[in-house]
Amino acid sequence: MTRRAPRRPPPFGERDAVALFVRTFSARARGVASVGIGDDAAVLERVGDPLVWTVDASVEGTHFERGWLELEDIGYRAFQAAASDLAAMGARPLAALSALELPKAFSKRELEALTRGQAMAARECGAPIVGGNVARSARLALTTTLLGTARAPLGRDGARPGDELWLLGGVGLAALGLELLRKRSRMTRREAEQACVAAWRRPRALIADGARLVGRARAAIDVSDGLAGDVANLARASGVRAVLEAARLEAVLAPELVSVARRLGRSPLDAALHGGEDYALVATGPTARRPRRATVIGRVERGRGAVLELSTGRTSALRPGYDHLAR
Amino acid sequence: MTRRAPRRPPPFGERDAVALFVRTFSARARGVASVGIGDDAAVLERVGDPLVWTVDASVEGTHFERGWLELEDIGYRAFQAAASDLAAMGARPLAALSALELPKAFSKRELEALTRGQAMAARECGAPIVGGNVARSARLALTTTLLGTARAPLGRDGARPGDELWLLGGVGLAALGLELLRKRSRMTRREAEQACVAAWRRPRALIADGARLVGRARAAIDVSDGLAGDVANLARASGVRAVLEAARLEAVLAPELVSVARRLGRSPLDAALHGGEDYALVATGPTARRPRRATVIGRVERGRGAVLELSTGRTSALRPGYDHLAR
Repeated sequence: MTRRAPRRPPPFGERDAVALFVRTFSARARGVASVGIGDDAAVLERVGDPLVWTVDASVEGTHFERGWLELEDIGYRAFQAAASDLAAMGARPLAALSALELPKAFSKRELEALTRGQAMAARECGAPIVGGNVARSARLALTTTLLGTARAPLGRDGARPGDELWLLGGVGLAALGLELLRKRSRMTRREAEQACVAAWRRPRALIADGARLVGRARAAIDVSDGLAGDVANLARASGVRAVLEAARLEAVLAPELVSVARRLGRSPLDAALHGGEDYALVATGPTARRPRRATVIGRVERGRGAVLELSTGRTSALRPGYDHLAR
Repeated sequence: MTRRAPRRPPPFGERDAVALFVRTFSARARGVASVGIGDDAAVLERVGDPLVWTVDASVEGTHFERGWLELEDIGYRAFQAAASDLAAMGARPLAALSALELPKAFSKRELEALTRGQAMAARECGAPIVGGNVARSARLALTTTLLGTARAPLGRDGARPGDELWLLGGVGLAALGLELLRKRSRMTRREAEQACVAAWRRPRALIADGARLVGRARAAIDVSDGLAGDVANLARASGVRAVLEAARLEAVLAPELVSVARRLGRSPLDAALHGGEDYALVATGPTARRPRRATVIGRVERGRGAVLELSTGRTSALRPGYDHLAR
């Protein structure tokens, strides 16, 4: 088939885009990739440790709307969300590939902003973007695939009765931030509200915390879909019962979470349990091995399932995690 | 944010989808991934050789329309298209991750057909799908990322003056097949037309041919965007002039290509030069090292650019490759 030239020149072509990727991403890739952006595939140096490998997509209309955040934020958070899967495995990020679906009207300036955000996150995570793909689509989408290494990768299936349940990082803020954005709320002037919006727009994968769990934790998972659901996922995978203690969790909630939840007429505990996208880590392990930055929020017992235990001693089942197909 | 249950149950949920992925993909992953589908990330055994890594997207409305092919074909060709990048590097596929964007109305039966096609291609390529991601989107999209290994990966930048220009596999058939499908042509009853349609629907990455080029070829590229453009890309990357000899190319055109091109009122040579998506390989190397299955279609000289040389000796510049953003 003859590929005819378009009637009027597009804002920019594929070659421009590749040149932009080289400018934006390549400087950091030296020493990692011996072949990088521009060839058929990237080539990585020999790697000794086991490889940990993940892919995550961020799709306009599903994971974000353009009106809620800047393009730089979109690039940044898509990358961090993918990197969080490596954090949950205790892996050190090595390199990334970025597959972009760009709508027709997307301009070069917009692509610059998007990739600037990706490059910033890649730098923070220590995983240069060494290649990728670009395609036209009806809506903007970013699919990020990351490789990391881990001496002893942490699965979600290793929890044992007697373990403590640990939380690293905050939960609930991002979901309240998203709620404020969805409502186009004017409530975003206060510091607490700004903190929530920032938590959603600029989450950070807890790479260093995850790496420090290796040799200490028996299981780990990242809280992408809500604490309740992800604790339930961990318990199911490990074949144990996880008990989340409400009083312990409430004791570590961020003051911003408590204040914004109340202003929105919401229970802070509910926001902490069911809000996703903060990319905190939940892990389990013996008391003697608890890392300094981990907070105890519960315990692991024999049995099945996951429950919330109130200070009265009453328990209620934790609902399963957010279903990415159930909308 | 509380994730409310949807008003009516969805056709299937994320957990069903993951179970389906495990059923469809996992059997072959043993021995490659020590952690597979269902955890935060996949874990691969230690790998000695340099890693070759690629990602490719297949997006409804851009790369295909649902009316043109079965879902099994969509899964199959998306995987093979991604694997072709590894073939072009002379790499042996090791494993793959699949990121799916599924429209709301997508049923479990449809997902089964899609993943069946992916699994079939994964088996043929020797790269089990060890993980992935699933997200809702307005349109169907498949992003496949593949890891392979190569003792000495073949870039597109190693061609030298004096090299022959080699072709492995057929070119042009797939684009004519696509043209027949676009026109909803009734011309697809003849064998030649069926061959063209099949070439577009079920392309095969030339993994074995690519691997045999290692130690023989100096540069290689896969013909995803049209022979003319991809030869021009190889010449540009290598800093040489590539001369594609029309008589040699015409001598190796498939009889089906010649017959269908003529019926469509097209020049067979033009179809061979500008049709993409057959996933043939073009490589360059010295005569003494030419693999048995490679056909000489031209030569590499000092200079810049890429030209088509007619039997009269006249040359015309080869147009650059298909621009994925220029529509």
